[in-house]
Amino acid sequence: MKNNDKKPTSIVVFGGTGDLAKRKLFPAFFNLFLEGWMPDDFELLSLGRTEHTQEEFRAYILENIKAFSRIKNFSEDKWNAFKEKIKFIRFDITQEESFIQLKNQLDYIDTNLGSRANRLFYLSVAPSFIEKVSNSLKKNGLAENVDQDRMIIEKPFGYDKESAVALNTMLAQTFKEEQIYRIDHYLGKENVQNILAFRFGNTIFEPLWNNKYIDSVQITVAETVGVEDRGGYYDGSGALRDMIQNHLMQILCMVAMEAPTEFESTEIRNRKVDVLKSVRRINPEDINHYTVRAQYTQGEVEGQHKRGYLQEPGVNPNSNTETYVAMKFYVDNERWNGVPFYMRTGKSMSEKASSVIISFKEAPCTTFKSTVNTLKPNKLTIDIQPEMDIKLSFMTKKPGLEMQLKPAEMVFDYFECSPDTPEAYETLLLDALDGDSTLFMRSDQVEEAWDVISNIQTAWEKGNVSKMYTYPAGSSGPEAADELLKRQGHYWFTNSQETLKSEENA
Amino acid sequence: MKNNDKKPTSIVVFGGTGDLAKRKLFPAFFNLFLEGWMPDDFELLSLGRTEHTQEEFRAYILENIKAFSRIKNFSEDKWNAFKEKIKFIRFDITQEESFIQLKNQLDYIDTNLGSRANRLFYLSVAPSFIEKVSNSLKKNGLAENVDQDRMIIEKPFGYDKESAVALNTMLAQTFKEEQIYRIDHYLGKENVQNILAFRFGNTIFEPLWNNKYIDSVQITVAETVGVEDRGGYYDGSGALRDMIQNHLMQILCMVAMEAPTEFESTEIRNRKVDVLKSVRRINPEDINHYTVRAQYTQGEVEGQHKRGYLQEPGVNPNSNTETYVAMKFYVDNERWNGVPFYMRTGKSMSEKASSVIISFKEAPCTTFKSTVNTLKPNKLTIDIQPEMDIKLSFMTKKPGLEMQLKPAEMVFDYFECSPDTPEAYETLLLDALDGDSTLFMRSDQVEEAWDVISNIQTAWEKGNVSKMYTYPAGSSGPEAADELLKRQGHYWFTNSQETLKSEENA
Repeated sequence: MKNNDKKPTSIVVFGGTGDLAKRKLFPAFFNLFLEGWMPDDFELLSLGRTEHTQEEFRAYILENIKAFSRIKNFSEDKWNAFKEKIKFIRFDITQEESFIQLKNQLDYIDTNLGSRANRLFYLSVAPSFIEKVSNSLKKNGLAENVDQDRMIIEKPFGYDKESAVALNTMLAQTFKEEQIYRIDHYLGKENVQNILAFRFGNTIFEPLWNNKYIDSVQITVAETVGVEDRGGYYDGSGALRDMIQNHLMQILCMVAMEAPTEFESTEIRNRKVDVLKSVRRINPEDINHYTVRAQYTQGEVEGQHKRGYLQEPGVNPNSNTETYVAMKFYVDNERWNGVPFYMRTGKSMSEKASSVIISFKEAPCTTFKSTVNTLKPNKLTIDIQPEMDIKLSFMTKKPGLEMQLKPAEMVFDYFECSPDTPEAYETLLLDALDGDSTLFMRSDQVEEAWDVISNIQTAWEKGNVSKMYTYPAGSSGPEAADELLKRQGHYWFTNSQETLKSEENA
Repeated sequence: MKNNDKKPTSIVVFGGTGDLAKRKLFPAFFNLFLEGWMPDDFELLSLGRTEHTQEEFRAYILENIKAFSRIKNFSEDKWNAFKEKIKFIRFDITQEESFIQLKNQLDYIDTNLGSRANRLFYLSVAPSFIEKVSNSLKKNGLAENVDQDRMIIEKPFGYDKESAVALNTMLAQTFKEEQIYRIDHYLGKENVQNILAFRFGNTIFEPLWNNKYIDSVQITVAETVGVEDRGGYYDGSGALRDMIQNHLMQILCMVAMEAPTEFESTEIRNRKVDVLKSVRRINPEDINHYTVRAQYTQGEVEGQHKRGYLQEPGVNPNSNTETYVAMKFYVDNERWNGVPFYMRTGKSMSEKASSVIISFKEAPCTTFKSTVNTLKPNKLTIDIQPEMDIKLSFMTKKPGLEMQLKPAEMVFDYFECSPDTPEAYETLLLDALDGDSTLFMRSDQVEEAWDVISNIQTAWEKGNVSKMYTYPAGSSGPEAADELLKRQGHYWFTNSQETLKSEENA
């Protein structure tokens, strides 16, 4: 909804001088403001530890908006209106006094407004501070209005199922579940949201969307970056926790879920939890059959030399933390029985690419058995980033005098059709402002996703159960990941072999 | 197969100085020659009534090849080799003596070769001469070798069912059915052939290809040309006979047929005849419910003034011949029960365009009922000419901050992927040389297709049963054709309203 329907809102950013705030949050709020999505009355209270004057802080925000915002036509007038909404507040999370001052500030806003504004707390802070903030918000009565007050928190939502349950239990002492917006920015990406539009807004895909026609599904989230300056944090996490448990599992839910009766938060999140409950738990003794983990060694990424993971600053030189995971899941329900869902994610890979690929079964090939040796199975590719497109590969007559077939492709380029597509954070912040939690993770989603990977975590923590493979930085991962698929006659479509294979058949 | 496998062949073109020979046949033979598809040994005997020296005739062929051939890189050397194969023979169809000379010529070729060459007779002559040629070929023993001798004939194959049966019976006295190649050049068009590749070479389309998912089918063959200098011929024929009975009905067969067990002539033609047998015969009293006929009146086509049909030279000013037909067929079988197949064809239309459009049923729209009013049904468009592409329209998330849907399109441009696509005549002449009759019409196909339109012919011949509508030259046809669809809530997709509607929804 546009701004004229919106309640006044006080937005409070804990970690207002941090990296996320500067790169994502403020640019997103500014873009929402430019395009008329912010409430008419709002304040952006930005909390940080070091002292800044308002002028200094606003100049800093402006600099970052110019550096990181997608908007090309910066408007000085709009900025002048926006900057008045920004208020820097020196804040020490550990001091109760800070929360009391914040309360006074929020009450002052309400007094001036003549009504109680909505409150949106964005907790862009280290996990260890979540409990303190939550408790102090409660103690000082800052977020007592269930219908008006919301809190956004960032992953990690725990580091295993037990800790996730503990976190949720702790949060539940201050907030009702419907007030908590657990953000997974992958769910705000246009082409991830589009999976549901594509599946349920059309007649022709859903009849094919099951184990009768689908052979396998591949979900890839590959990054070229390594751990950069986050070695210390990353070494305590790893690809399974940092990526598979949240982003990839959520994409799996979008691909595999049953049709929601309507596009509504509870309904959609119920259908996602259904998927997670149906994902086969891997027995500890089968871990190596279903999973491959690896660390990058030194190599070259996009022309730049890159050191190995164990040489990264902040990383334990004997670290047992994986920077790459490839694995196979099954969704044991009527629709997906027998269809492998292959997932992989890694750092320091050859290219940045996130995609979902639906590979259909082979055509019966009876009609063309005399003229055509191989019919390449149909493939539907949903590219999430950096490309944003949908590609459907199919067999067509090879133009020419004989009835030969060759693979061809239809493409819908999402980005080309709308180069000003909003950033994931714009979508998600707007939804949180509007009280729409559809794209946020409910507590049971988080806990169920941890449950799915629980046995893997346990097995991997015993270092001797699973081998830690390696892959050179800038490669497409360890060979063992190819072997994982080869056992069932599959291969990763986006690796270089795929290109060669298509050319041979063309 | 390429030339090294091919038997020597004597090609005999009756009507070798005619319009088809000059525009289509010689350019096609030359292109086949250039690309290595002609037999190593062949002769092109070109028969015509007026005297020409070989040099004159060859120069005339060269001129036409340069004017009408798709080949861009003309090769002087290749032409010099090709022209030696061309032999002009002065010929009078009405004179038996001519056939005796032709026999001597063919025997002389065989003697020089030391073996009996294959013979391919192309009868590019007026229908009234077919019987004479056929009889004389028989009488003089010119086409006695069933395995080696073939005859290509052009439409019209009769003017109603009775005359078609009579024609087939007459031809059967000289030729076995397997020697007769009834050419319908539409079947040689790349994207018409591609219909079968598309349907049966993929997993994902055939499950949707039935009345559970398909709402209706539209087949359009629109021409911008009027009757030009063929008014006399056309006035004795009309759009129903000239287009619907053959081209459009054959395309219908490709779209509607069951899967052939293999890509083989008998099998494929059997499956096509199955379709024709299942096409619902329209009762004489329902003619106006199923059909609309019309004549063009004066107007403007592509910026040029065009006179009305009744003012065309050679046309009876009180003519009852239609230049436009729109109609609805049903294929009464398990697969297609209840799905209307709309067909239309016309002369002097606003644009030249042949296409098949498969319109799918509406999506259930349960998921998006609260946010989206209308989901545009999926549509698969197969453009045959002048465009050669396949387009799939579908609903996608409208890029932006809210879950709105909009129609989008994936396109596979056949022409872009291969701009040197062969002409239909190249494909068909090569098939005839190779003895592959898959793309030619068997006698029962022709007769069954006449049977389908038989009641319409009868009703229309009684002038008072059906109204003759009019449409201005350069328009998209008479309004009555829109009404024909509107009764079932449908509309012609390629008319201009369609474009408007998509834009509104976008």
